Amino acid sequence: MVDVHTDLATAQSLAERLLVTAGVPSPAAAQQAELLLIAEAKGMPSHGLLRLPRLLRRIANGTASPTNTGKHEWLSPCYLSVDGEQGLGPVVAVRALEAVVQAAERHGVAACSITNNNHLGMLGYYAGRMAERGLVCLGMTTSEALVHPWGGTEAMLGTNPLALGVPARPHPLVLDMATSQISMGKVHDHALRGVPLEPGWALDAAGNPTVDPVAAKSGSIAPFGGAKGYGLGLGLEAMVTFLTGAAYGTAVGGTLDDDRPSNKGDLFILLSGARYSATDYLDQVRGSRRADPATPVAVPGDRARARYQQSVANGIDIADDLWRELTAFQGVQPEAALAE
Amino acid sequence: MVDVHTDLATAQSLAERLLVTAGVPSPAAAQQAELLLIAEAKGMPSHGLLRLPRLLRRIANGTASPTNTGKHEWLSPCYLSVDGEQGLGPVVAVRALEAVVQAAERHGVAACSITNNNHLGMLGYYAGRMAERGLVCLGMTTSEALVHPWGGTEAMLGTNPLALGVPARPHPLVLDMATSQISMGKVHDHALRGVPLEPGWALDAAGNPTVDPVAAKSGSIAPFGGAKGYGLGLGLEAMVTFLTGAAYGTAVGGTLDDDRPSNKGDLFILLSGARYSATDYLDQVRGSRRADPATPVAVPGDRARARYQQSVANGIDIADDLWRELTAFQGVQPEAALAE
Repeated sequence: MVDVHTDLATAQSLAERLLVTAGVPSPAAAQQAELLLIAEAKGMPSHGLLRLPRLLRRIANGTASPTNTGKHEWLSPCYLSVDGEQGLGPVVAVRALEAVVQAAERHGVAACSITNNNHLGMLGYYAGRMAERGLVCLGMTTSEALVHPWGGTEAMLGTNPLALGVPARPHPLVLDMATSQISMGKVHDHALRGVPLEPGWALDAAGNPTVDPVAAKSGSIAPFGGAKGYGLGLGLEAMVTFLTGAAYGTAVGGTLDDDRPSNKGDLFILLSGARYSATDYLDQVRGSRRADPATPVAVPGDRARARYQQSVANGIDIADDLWRELTAFQGVQPEAALAE
Repeated sequence: MVDVHTDLATAQSLAERLLVTAGVPSPAAAQQAELLLIAEAKGMPSHGLLRLPRLLRRIANGTASPTNTGKHEWLSPCYLSVDGEQGLGPVVAVRALEAVVQAAERHGVAACSITNNNHLGMLGYYAGRMAERGLVCLGMTTSEALVHPWGGTEAMLGTNPLALGVPARPHPLVLDMATSQISMGKVHDHALRGVPLEPGWALDAAGNPTVDPVAAKSGSIAPFGGAKGYGLGLGLEAMVTFLTGAAYGTAVGGTLDDDRPSNKGDLFILLSGARYSATDYLDQVRGSRRADPATPVAVPGDRARARYQQSVANGIDIADDLWRELTAFQGVQPEAALAE
């Protein structure tokens, strides 16, 4: 398969036009498109443009609202509950987080639970955005059951990522990790590119090990780090379920299909009040003795940031099939796209 | 090495007497001893009586206060900052958490940061205790630099455990995991018992792989789950440092030595407001297809709970050396013990 090479601005403009054509107001389309392109630029294609055709189909069939931005209900001065009204994930989440910033600054801690919201995309984006504002941010979101328990062989957990942002100079620490060995987005990306999985990453539907990404799609993927990663993923899903009332386990839908309303949950916790800078510590870690003399020790976010800067300078590669699918979408309604 | 078999009550009573002899008021001694014995009973000897001789030496030399319980300062109605005044870890932490419960119930979220506090012991205890009260609890604590970064070869991070409690019936989910492949307590326990480590667990002081627990003590242990576990451990340490002002990295002391004041940080976040029970989900996971037909899928906390019940019924085994050390402590100050 040949990749299409493009610059970020062109790809983002394409994504934005497709969203606007689908009925998304311009600022929201820019927000959603930005999330997808930052993921591409950071080398996370699983959370990039790959997600756009599905999102456009979801808008077309009414499972994603192009205009809703979430209904806010403050349960206390530092706890915001948001009904996402099936809006676009990043649009609902960014609006919710911006509303919570002041509460976190005033009270030292604040939380925000979100239900009925579409896929957030790259969770680290939110943690990084908040950390740039001087806040510690823990972000969690659940997803369709794709991961087998440690000691189990069927998909019972979402890939349940955890994001953590901690302010530092010149850049914050930004952790963004699925609690699975890999994300299902990566399985899809491998399937799209025809690249086999690594052994130990996945089981097929019968519960047997497989390296075939297509077989893994109907099977399950492994938790990362054995029993601990499983425990973390399950704990996060139980926590989000308990606090948001979102669906859990095999009842979760709407993040990998076209036609089910999204019923997973999102949870953010913001903390303020710097007592000490983390900058010196992170620099000490970066400067510590290396396993490979040619590769400095990295802090979470460093490599994605370097990759992002490369992408800004040199452009990105998009899978040919995906690019054709996107431009075909565009072709369907050329007048609408131009009219905008 | 021969183990000494004892029942829980006898061992807890010994620990309590030793603490009282050292000047700890009776209720605080019971609290500290309970933490150590629950760890023994749950099969976590690394956080059990092994810690007691050091704690007694710390009390004797003034690096642990037998009587201080922490100075509380509310920074907002939902954020408690505690100066632990070098009190006993569990005594300071339980008092702090109990003070925060009501704030979490009223506001939906509350946090508590603690500095200058001795070793907390088994972090899951606190998460389980809060979850039994109906609260979600995230607990974090840092520790001396023992873990090498992913891609690095020297100890730059604590074992930085994360605990998570989520209410459920009849028992909460209680996750309690070091972000290292193993805890340094386990290294010490292996050293005490003369049992080699598993390959991949540790590096020696020069940065080379080792299975010798004694060599590992002066080297470093691996993060769990590769880059992700490293990222999580570093993120937690940076977060705790930022919010508590505690020391970080190689500057942390007082949890594995006798003579340095404890300068690590502890952080708890409590959330309330059940929207949905996690019980059914956890039961579905427990009932899901097993990798080994003889072993049901477990939820974090299940195995420790079963082990605890066994220990209550059948007693526990304590390493002979340790038991002799403890009874020798008892022998050293018989008059003081009687005077108390």
